[in-house]
Amino acid sequence: MQVWKEYQKKNKDRFLEELFELLRIPSVSAKKEHKDDLIKCADALKHRLLEAGADKVDIYPTEGHPIVYGEKMIDPSKPTVLVYGHYDVQPAEPLELWKHGPFDPTIVDGKIFARGSCDDKGQVYMHVKAFETMVKTNSLYCNVKFCIEGEEEVGSPNLGKFVAEHKDLLKADCVLISDSAMISLDTPSIDVGVRGLSYIEVEVTGPNRDLHSGVYGGAVANPITILAKMIASLHDENNHISIPGFYDDVAIATEEERALMAKAPFNEKEYAEDLGVKELWGEKGFSTNERTGIRPTLELNGIWGGYTGEGAKTVLPSKAYAKISARLVPNQISQKITDLLINHLEKIAPPYITLKASLHHGGEPYVTPIDSKAYQAAAKAMEATFGKEPIPVRGGGSIPICSLFEKELGIKVVFMGFGLDSDNLHSPNEKYDLANFYKGIETIPYFHKYFAEL
Amino acid sequence: MQVWKEYQKKNKDRFLEELFELLRIPSVSAKKEHKDDLIKCADALKHRLLEAGADKVDIYPTEGHPIVYGEKMIDPSKPTVLVYGHYDVQPAEPLELWKHGPFDPTIVDGKIFARGSCDDKGQVYMHVKAFETMVKTNSLYCNVKFCIEGEEEVGSPNLGKFVAEHKDLLKADCVLISDSAMISLDTPSIDVGVRGLSYIEVEVTGPNRDLHSGVYGGAVANPITILAKMIASLHDENNHISIPGFYDDVAIATEEERALMAKAPFNEKEYAEDLGVKELWGEKGFSTNERTGIRPTLELNGIWGGYTGEGAKTVLPSKAYAKISARLVPNQISQKITDLLINHLEKIAPPYITLKASLHHGGEPYVTPIDSKAYQAAAKAMEATFGKEPIPVRGGGSIPICSLFEKELGIKVVFMGFGLDSDNLHSPNEKYDLANFYKGIETIPYFHKYFAEL
Repeated sequence: MQVWKEYQKKNKDRFLEELFELLRIPSVSAKKEHKDDLIKCADALKHRLLEAGADKVDIYPTEGHPIVYGEKMIDPSKPTVLVYGHYDVQPAEPLELWKHGPFDPTIVDGKIFARGSCDDKGQVYMHVKAFETMVKTNSLYCNVKFCIEGEEEVGSPNLGKFVAEHKDLLKADCVLISDSAMISLDTPSIDVGVRGLSYIEVEVTGPNRDLHSGVYGGAVANPITILAKMIASLHDENNHISIPGFYDDVAIATEEERALMAKAPFNEKEYAEDLGVKELWGEKGFSTNERTGIRPTLELNGIWGGYTGEGAKTVLPSKAYAKISARLVPNQISQKITDLLINHLEKIAPPYITLKASLHHGGEPYVTPIDSKAYQAAAKAMEATFGKEPIPVRGGGSIPICSLFEKELGIKVVFMGFGLDSDNLHSPNEKYDLANFYKGIETIPYFHKYFAEL
Repeated sequence: MQVWKEYQKKNKDRFLEELFELLRIPSVSAKKEHKDDLIKCADALKHRLLEAGADKVDIYPTEGHPIVYGEKMIDPSKPTVLVYGHYDVQPAEPLELWKHGPFDPTIVDGKIFARGSCDDKGQVYMHVKAFETMVKTNSLYCNVKFCIEGEEEVGSPNLGKFVAEHKDLLKADCVLISDSAMISLDTPSIDVGVRGLSYIEVEVTGPNRDLHSGVYGGAVANPITILAKMIASLHDENNHISIPGFYDDVAIATEEERALMAKAPFNEKEYAEDLGVKELWGEKGFSTNERTGIRPTLELNGIWGGYTGEGAKTVLPSKAYAKISARLVPNQISQKITDLLINHLEKIAPPYITLKASLHHGGEPYVTPIDSKAYQAAAKAMEATFGKEPIPVRGGGSIPICSLFEKELGIKVVFMGFGLDSDNLHSPNEKYDLANFYKGIETIPYFHKYFAEL
């Protein structure tokens, strides 16, 4: 499709400039202080969608941050592609580790450094520009709908209600999502599954006030010590999660599936070197890719308590806190695991402290069948632009809304991600390669073409 | 001594006003940003000592914060009392828990609320005003020297060198310190021992950068999980410290000593209620007072790592940190315990993380013999103003410089403290009762009188 290529080549620099404008908006959904930035970002997207050729774009307010919906309907007899993505980003902290401002996008060595460059503004914007390419070159094959939300990074608390109440509006034949990674530009891959999530926060209270650790040390339980003991008990010596019932619903992969997974190119030594660790760590009996793909995990996302400033303070603190999340695989159910986790922590909490545990958010695991029309179209599209058939892989992250779309709209999700695992998602110095950004814009129109043809 | 009483009654309000001026200076020694406040505080003390009647007062710079030295020599044949105290204070954090500004002293229900009100500005200033009382009423019995430092709360790193280099200047017959507590105004007591200290900080590094907990969760060790496991292993199921060799040098109290300690009035139920805990916690086989007095302890003073802000962030952090301190009893040696602790942590650190452990500060345990002249003078002084003989008790806190004075100057320390354990030292809403402040000013001159007479 020479006409797409020419259009994109001519407008290359503008595409990037427009993305930079989006990246400059600090749309951090977890923080109340950024509420107006999310509105600003939704508004900017609306205008870009209209300019790109959408017939109508509406901003739907929610109890949290708004949802941007846009569409271009060319022919009711043609299939409809629903593009889902999110314009909110993770908090940028710790700020001191960024080499450039997180909201001041900067290109170094052909990579865009900015919070949201890959997750997910950069990948959402590929769809806007691919859509523009097809509209402006009069080569749309499918009806196109966009549903871009502002709360993905906080667990999409209001998307469920929106989708349930707008089933007709969102009616489509597949959901296309670019919010994941591929192995590399040399080795294209497609995620055929994402893990679910159960994210909780715990507060352990010992004494009712901070105490002098000399005067009271030895008399009363230290909430940090107790919290550490509780956390330590959650993994056994084989790094299995030792919460009774945790693995009960886990779908066990067949030897055949595991053999297929083992074929994906993976160098354990290079992987460890890239992360700067002498040894990898994880559940005994499973390979690294299995541990991040088909096995559930339990991670500590944060911990704090007592004096954390410069120097020394001899305090025996009143409280200690932790943020803990589990990644779930088919057929685990998020609510069930959350209950299991909270009940277990309450059960093991000793009588000298008080425990409060509460849910932040959850999401269900999801698997896309590789024989679906959507997957086949994605695979053909990537083959067209990469020159190689993509490898199906299981992703470790979570996109909690996949099972929602399937349940409410009865359609399959396909994950055509163009990021890399090394893109520092959720970390300082998040990046997105220019090559991946442009490759995405090039590949997406092929998806629409093949989806209409298959 | 009616003349003292009259002088103090007449100047009561001024004494308090002057203390408030000192309390308003945020002389937090642990934080570099307060360097100038410490200089300001030392300066203010110098002027107050001169006004009170000191012959000379000098400020000795150190590599850290300065030391204030003042003296009034009346007669070389009379005994000399060296008053030691500190004008620096603990950090005030967490600020949001203070009912009044920590550096805006406020009287509520007859108590002075401010950082340093009890520890130790309020108690140091009793000595300045007791000294003034004796000078202005022409009733000094002893030569008096003051050594007031600005680094007690960070482990007195420069006092040792100062004392060693100024043995003649500091030559005295006893060291008198008011930086501890008594049981209550109804039950006066004198600390006959303080615990030593070994305070370290550990940094656990997992991967070389913060990671997405979905993409990498299960593949690589989480430094928070590992740190929690290491901390959890430091106490066994009986809450004994499980570091090999930790108890080797602990002086075992005789049954007689334990029986004497058990006589001090103590209500375990009220103690637990005051702290708001359902159950107390500690080393099996020892009473609460024994656990805070004659037994060593290991406390977590702080912990942090990963995302600690509002909401949820699915990060697998690169680093986790903890501040850990041990309280030591005779005959443990601070440096030996520090080495033991750091070596043990290094030994149990698993290969998938990197551990850095370093010393913040340490101090030796100390015991005052109750048959010493200084203890006897303190006991008689308290009996004169409280109408009861004080009870000798073992304090849980640390005053690292006691063993230093004994070693360099060859003299005994006596702890005549007027605080209460409930004064929220090192915590939000630190307080000092007006009654205790004035009782201290009333009692101290008797100490000088009896020390000269005994």
